[in-house]
Amino acid sequence: LANEPFNNLLGIRTIETGDKTVTIECQLRPELMNSDGVLHGGVTATLADVAVGQAVEHHFGGARLNTTVEMKVNYLRPIMGTRVTARGRLLRIGNTLCVGQADVMDDAGNLAGVALVTYMLLDAPAPVR
Amino acid sequence: LANEPFNNLLGIRTIETGDKTVTIECQLRPELMNSDGVLHGGVTATLADVAVGQAVEHHFGGARLNTTVEMKVNYLRPIMGTRVTARGRLLRIGNTLCVGQADVMDDAGNLAGVALVTYMLLDAPAPVR
Amino acid sequence: LANEPFNNLLGIRTIETGDKTVTIECQLRPELMNSDGVLHGGVTATLADVAVGQAVEHHFGGARLNTTVEMKVNYLRPIMGTRVTARGRLLRIGNTLCVGQADVMDDAGNLAGVALVTYMLLDAPAPVR
Amino acid sequence: LANEPFNNLLGIRTIETGDKTVTIECQLRPELMNSDGVLHGGVTATLADVAVGQAVEHHFGGARLNTTVEMKVNYLRPIMGTRVTARGRLLRIGNTLCVGQADVMDDAGNLAGVALVTYMLLDAPAPVR
Repeated sequence: LANEPFNNLLGIRTIETGDKTVTIECQLRPELMNSDGVLHGGVTATLADVAVGQAVEHHFGGARLNTTVEMKVNYLRPIMGTRVTARGRLLRIGNTLCVGQADVMDDAGNLAGVALVTYMLLDAPAPVR
Repeated sequence: LANEPFNNLLGIRTIETGDKTVTIECQLRPELMNSDGVLHGGVTATLADVAVGQAVEHHFGGARLNTTVEMKVNYLRPIMGTRVTARGRLLRIGNTLCVGQADVMDDAGNLAGVALVTYMLLDAPAPVR
Repeated sequence: LANEPFNNLLGIRTIETGDKTVTIECQLRPELMNSDGVLHGGVTATLADVAVGQAVEHHFGGARLNTTVEMKVNYLRPIMGTRVTARGRLLRIGNTLCVGQADVMDDAGNLAGVALVTYMLLDAPAPVR
Repeated sequence: LANEPFNNLLGIRTIETGDKTVTIECQLRPELMNSDGVLHGGVTATLADVAVGQAVEHHFGGARLNTTVEMKVNYLRPIMGTRVTARGRLLRIGNTLCVGQADVMDDAGNLAGVALVTYMLLDAPAPVR
């Protein structure tokens, strides 16, 4: 995540990679909070996007151009404490689209958010019919 | 948006309010970009969340506790240029849930993203049956 | 919609076409209801999918193979009465993906549901870079 | 599912219940297909909605009034063959909202669709603050 300006602004870093999965983390700090003192929903959405995006990057060894085409997040609990993690996992790797799920956990181990994210491979060849 | 730390980190400010609508803007700057040099999808998602949230706040005059329960964003074009705006509009104001749409526009006037966002009113009375 | 078996089972028919828009309707009848006596959410989702799909078909004159890749529906009110309409409108027509919105209306003219639907053009040429 | 007219029209039946999970199935037949000869996306969406709804019903022993407030489906593969199953699993059981995931499988055991579905408990008491 070295050359990802917004990820760096938030302090997102990768902590684990596996087969079709990547886990990232972010330390909570005052700038990432909303006016209620809990993690801003935009940070949770960013983590979901990045976790699945990193799973795409990891799966293809960073060799494929890609972009998020859509994302859906359900917020299950307010996120407090010291850090948040997001585990992205690829559910479907197609020729053109990759769909992944992100589970967002608080530091007490609660599932605090869940997301479905679709990435498009921008350098996909034409579909074979 | 004075006491919203994450909104301030991104530089989000309200530029227009109307009946059930609020428009916000954010100046693009290097820290908000991804590694491809376009606006990070997490910023777009944040703008969608905030635009609808501000429409909820505006509608109730800031008098109701609320939280995002879910959000869905479609990314329609990469966002470049100097600024991005998001117009949140309430589609349904229920006793417990408020659903809004956010249209995200680039500075050339293109629709660059669209979102549906659900907020819950945390201080809702018990449903009347 | 002549050779669409499931659309025919539900009784969906097109009532209006325009620039990037198609409106469909469905007569309510007991078989389409849930146990609470209102329209089943699956019918509303089907209408959203079909309305945007028909807008894709109409836009390309029926010349492009396509499939739904994802859909998101918000249910805003229970649907009762005698019929329901859904207006699909294309928000973005890309080389590979088309994104549309569907507004679902009850017969009193209330917005009863709203959806974002993504279609993929299966016969898209390879992206030009 | 005895008094669920639309579920009966489609031929949906429960095949397994567990802790926070319910699995349903539907036999494929010509009326449920689209013009490409694969399962209509509206049926898949219906199965996702019903699988999570039945998990809500099962969890509360049928004692709570509820309704779908929103649903998001990703279609991962075309569904063919003789039957389709959907496993609904509750991720979060709140005082007002329940969020579940549905995994839709074809009869070859492939994950063909995935969904996030939010239900509202209509008889929820007022939130305790």
